[in-house]
Amino acid sequence: MNASAASPLPIGVFDSGVGGLTVLKAIRQALPNEDLVYLGDTARLPYGTKSPASILRYASQATRQLRERGIKLLVVACNTASAVALDALREEMAPLPVLGVVGPGASTAVAARPAGRHLVLATEATVRLGAYRRAIMALDPGAAVDELACELLVSLAEEGWDRGAIGEAILRRYLEDLDADARAPDSVILGCTHFPLLRDIFVSVFDPEVSLVDSATTTAAAARDLLEELSLRNPGSVAGRLTLLATDGAQRFARVGGRFLGAALSADDIGLVDL
Amino acid sequence: MNASAASPLPIGVFDSGVGGLTVLKAIRQALPNEDLVYLGDTARLPYGTKSPASILRYASQATRQLRERGIKLLVVACNTASAVALDALREEMAPLPVLGVVGPGASTAVAARPAGRHLVLATEATVRLGAYRRAIMALDPGAAVDELACELLVSLAEEGWDRGAIGEAILRRYLEDLDADARAPDSVILGCTHFPLLRDIFVSVFDPEVSLVDSATTTAAAARDLLEELSLRNPGSVAGRLTLLATDGAQRFARVGGRFLGAALSADDIGLVDL
Repeated sequence: MNASAASPLPIGVFDSGVGGLTVLKAIRQALPNEDLVYLGDTARLPYGTKSPASILRYASQATRQLRERGIKLLVVACNTASAVALDALREEMAPLPVLGVVGPGASTAVAARPAGRHLVLATEATVRLGAYRRAIMALDPGAAVDELACELLVSLAEEGWDRGAIGEAILRRYLEDLDADARAPDSVILGCTHFPLLRDIFVSVFDPEVSLVDSATTTAAAARDLLEELSLRNPGSVAGRLTLLATDGAQRFARVGGRFLGAALSADDIGLVDL
Repeated sequence: MNASAASPLPIGVFDSGVGGLTVLKAIRQALPNEDLVYLGDTARLPYGTKSPASILRYASQATRQLRERGIKLLVVACNTASAVALDALREEMAPLPVLGVVGPGASTAVAARPAGRHLVLATEATVRLGAYRRAIMALDPGAAVDELACELLVSLAEEGWDRGAIGEAILRRYLEDLDADARAPDSVILGCTHFPLLRDIFVSVFDPEVSLVDSATTTAAAARDLLEELSLRNPGSVAGRLTLLATDGAQRFARVGGRFLGAALSADDIGLVDL
């Protein structure tokens, strides 16, 4: 790879399922001329409740598949995989640049609220690993970080129940497990790629002063900055092509994923790959 | 295998995760002297949203593992796997007797409400395959069957939110998709092994006249009857031993599974196997 030249190669985006399509959508908006290839490991989702060893193995298999197709940047658009496997994937994929979603989210939150109190809402695996806590504290030792696993919100987003009383009741119930200080944060980090779909619910439940940080737009901005820095932007000016791959269930991927991507999909739009 | 002799071999119970532990619990109560070996394919759960081809492959790998350990009866304690793969597993495992959860649930519902209107609550895959509809109509052509996918109830059971307003609101919201007749059934079949945990929610939402059929107790009774019929009951009188195996995540299996089994578990109680 020649980091000094512009590159027409696609950006590879990897997730355990359809959640990363919120990141893909944000990347398309930030980088409309780039070709994108997305791989959702739907045969083995969700990663959020699995062991680190399994997550690492699955992520490694999926990202090797993307590298073999030829990509100039790998985006790990899955909070759980970023939390568990980012260092290992960077080592394995070198010199290919690899970007996760945890770092961009953490730095955006810290920039918005220096020495602030941050509440991270995520999957069980992401919380257990404390990835956001470590990333935030490394950037801002004066910060305070609380982390809360909210597995039901993942299913809620997949079901498309993205507003209304049920989602608000579920979120409020999770928040009951926190002490009063943690329930009144300066920023809320949506530490799961499914959660940007539930934005209306977060807006209803949290104080309007709270800064809502989602890993989709923050990661897309970081991807754009990184391509600029490495002079890897696509020199062409036509709209980028989008390739969607999944390891299972093209029909469900199209139906649920269409909502995440914000564009109607049919099963014929999805290529099936075996890892 | 000699079907005319009593057998001390264990009963093998297979599920995609921890849901089948509700079936295991019912089998322990119905057959307290039998050794039981349970395998939860936690590395690849949930099956409910995956494609039939993947479900068949996973179920076949898992049940071969159980057969290699030596079992006298295989119980497929997973509605999705029963709906997709039971015929294929019976063929592959012959002459080992194989029992699924769909048949016992269907015949119990038909016996309770002849020519009745049945509402099946299940996962997306079980509903899509129409397994309960076919099983019920084969037994009782005068019956009416409605099927409703309720994925969020699976996560609700795993989270342990097994009673209260949130679960009731979720169930009522799913029921809104049915016409008025279907919302007033004679029987409700809990067509997912997670759902017996949510019994309080079903009791709150449905009319007290409605017959609630759960696949755990019906399958346990069918297993007892089948062992009697094949003269395969354990001749011993001591309490049966329980072996728990999973393909991933012993800690989560212990924490969530303990609730399903109705007994405290620690990660040390779970053996990890690779399929």
